[in-house]
Amino acid sequence: MKAKFSERKSVQEVEEGKILQPKFDDNNLIPVITIDDSTKEVLMHGYMNPEALNSSLETGQAHYWSRSRQCVWKKGETSGLKQIIRRILIDDDQDCLILSVELLGLKASCHVGYKSCFYRELLSKDLKYTHNLEFTEKEKVFDPKEIYGDTPNPTKL
Amino acid sequence: MKAKFSERKSVQEVEEGKILQPKFDDNNLIPVITIDDSTKEVLMHGYMNPEALNSSLETGQAHYWSRSRQCVWKKGETSGLKQIIRRILIDDDQDCLILSVELLGLKASCHVGYKSCFYRELLSKDLKYTHNLEFTEKEKVFDPKEIYGDTPNPTKL
Repeated sequence: MKAKFSERKSVQEVEEGKILQPKFDDNNLIPVITIDDSTKEVLMHGYMNPEALNSSLETGQAHYWSRSRQCVWKKGETSGLKQIIRRILIDDDQDCLILSVELLGLKASCHVGYKSCFYRELLSKDLKYTHNLEFTEKEKVFDPKEIYGDTPNPTKL
Repeated sequence: MKAKFSERKSVQEVEEGKILQPKFDDNNLIPVITIDDSTKEVLMHGYMNPEALNSSLETGQAHYWSRSRQCVWKKGETSGLKQIIRRILIDDDQDCLILSVELLGLKASCHVGYKSCFYRELLSKDLKYTHNLEFTEKEKVFDPKEIYGDTPNPTKL
């Protein structure tokens, strides 16, 4: 499937126009912020290549580019943690997307077992932030071993 | 100022540990999602290098790396659109941050004049998404010419 998007010809059109003109970076990727459509909570930060974006637009189901596996990744295909896209927003220079999604299955989106990938925050005092983290989600939604089995962990050092 | 962060030694520690071990990409940057601390709305998507992250942690005021200007950018220094950091979250593999901020000044964050950079969404029908955009913010908060004058536009084609 060949993904075709309108050519970027002017800054005015990119910023103030009404036509999708996404910018893919040097790796042919665009960053994607995924939020829960009902709570607005940020769930994850991923990437799409043109094919993943096109599949997302055509099917209404979130597809990403997996940087660790180097392939298009239909979210939830192995885990059942599917994401139905309820809204898509794009930013001023059209180099980032927001997917506002409804979570299916266990209603979680993080491979570690939490609802959101952002389950830790930095401890702070009087507007100074430390390097110490505190868990904001106290319990996992699921046991990753049960869902993913021996699938390699996508986290890289 | 030399920014030092703890070394990433194990996936277990990165995902489940309580020490900040941020991963910077090949360009020495980490992506940052900025949200409004009171409404949870996503305002912008930016990047930090180690120095910008360190300055943000030390001062509680958002600093980014400007890819167009290739320098650390203390948000609001010329525009007055400062961001006071109320919370910082980090994701599972510690390669993305959320800054939850209080907006000062005009209470906007987008150089085009809108509150959020994500002021347009893709039109859709029955879960199929088009390449046509609709404005979700109907009016600009400010006139960019008044605030930025002749400063070069950061949007690149």
